[in-house]
Amino acid sequence: MFKRIPAHIGVIPDGNRRWALREGMDKKEGYQKGLPPGFRLFEMLVEQGVKEATFYGFTRDNNKRAVEQRNAFTQACIDAVKLLENRSANLLVIGNEKSVAFPEELKPYANKRMVFREGGININFLVNYDWEWDLKTALSNGGKIASADIPRVDLLIRWGGRRRLSGFLPVQSVYADFYVVDDYWPDFEDKHFLDALAWYQDCDVTLGG
Amino acid sequence: MFKRIPAHIGVIPDGNRRWALREGMDKKEGYQKGLPPGFRLFEMLVEQGVKEATFYGFTRDNNKRAVEQRNAFTQACIDAVKLLENRSANLLVIGNEKSVAFPEELKPYANKRMVFREGGININFLVNYDWEWDLKTALSNGGKIASADIPRVDLLIRWGGRRRLSGFLPVQSVYADFYVVDDYWPDFEDKHFLDALAWYQDCDVTLGG
Repeated sequence: MFKRIPAHIGVIPDGNRRWALREGMDKKEGYQKGLPPGFRLFEMLVEQGVKEATFYGFTRDNNKRAVEQRNAFTQACIDAVKLLENRSANLLVIGNEKSVAFPEELKPYANKRMVFREGGININFLVNYDWEWDLKTALSNGGKIASADIPRVDLLIRWGGRRRLSGFLPVQSVYADFYVVDDYWPDFEDKHFLDALAWYQDCDVTLGG
Repeated sequence: MFKRIPAHIGVIPDGNRRWALREGMDKKEGYQKGLPPGFRLFEMLVEQGVKEATFYGFTRDNNKRAVEQRNAFTQACIDAVKLLENRSANLLVIGNEKSVAFPEELKPYANKRMVFREGGININFLVNYDWEWDLKTALSNGGKIASADIPRVDLLIRWGGRRRLSGFLPVQSVYADFYVVDDYWPDFEDKHFLDALAWYQDCDVTLGG
């Protein structure tokens, strides 16, 4: 269907709290609503032959939010990993596991790639990720950043209308083509992803040349 | 006129070559056409009370282009600095001055802030800038990146329709709100900048909180 498929897609699933408020719910209730869209997008990535995708879970900066929201987005990340374990994928969880905000339940998965079932697509999941921690790791790690195993992002898709990276993999995103979906993440539709791929067909990738 | 003025604006003046082709000129002729828009935007930044702006000159990756284009964009950067010397501004040229691609004429200005006339607005100019060089400088510089004197970017405006950073200050751009003008940079109009500021009025700056 598409002649150019990005090798690596970044996903910023934003707008869960705004979705919950619009639906008359508490902000914290938005996060669980993000799980079904995540697994639908996972299926579509596999169908389209995408080799690798990185999902933004939560960041150190997100920990400034109210405790019930923190608990809710942390639980949603744990649930996402548990559900992915029953699919075929290679999971790499990247985040600062030495911080108290890193969920205990995900420590066995932290910062090493794990093969689930038949493997196949590489899925990276940023959990308690912190761009400063990522870059500063190089200072004590022979020049290698913490996310050195994640390659360059070709296409970055953000839901929820905001036009910024919010600290998403700054090194890998330097040449990423950035597509914004105005709808909130829990309102995910197949069309969003297909429109992003259609848009990407005409992005000329020059890498500055 | 505007109630929120970004403290620091990033400018990616792209589309000079595509403009030249459209006008039936050689690609290299587009770069000089970028100077008048740059100085018009400079005036508008001062009028609006913007404290600091960073202009993307050229990058290490741009040096992959044909030699006559390299000569043309390098000359345009030299001319820009010479013209700015007759305005009131504090100039900081950031780029890898140890590379042969760094123009000899700009070495006296490299990597230290210079006060022109009455000073006032801080203007940063990325000349032979290289995001990898910027970040890797930290490894031999006590943890400080090469562009450590440039603060966080609040609003990043790119002309020429492409939706990517192309290596523009990855650390400072992590939370930058990204506004894209589809017109090519030599087709600059006041309205482009005013529309970007108008758009910025409604960007909520949460920094992840």
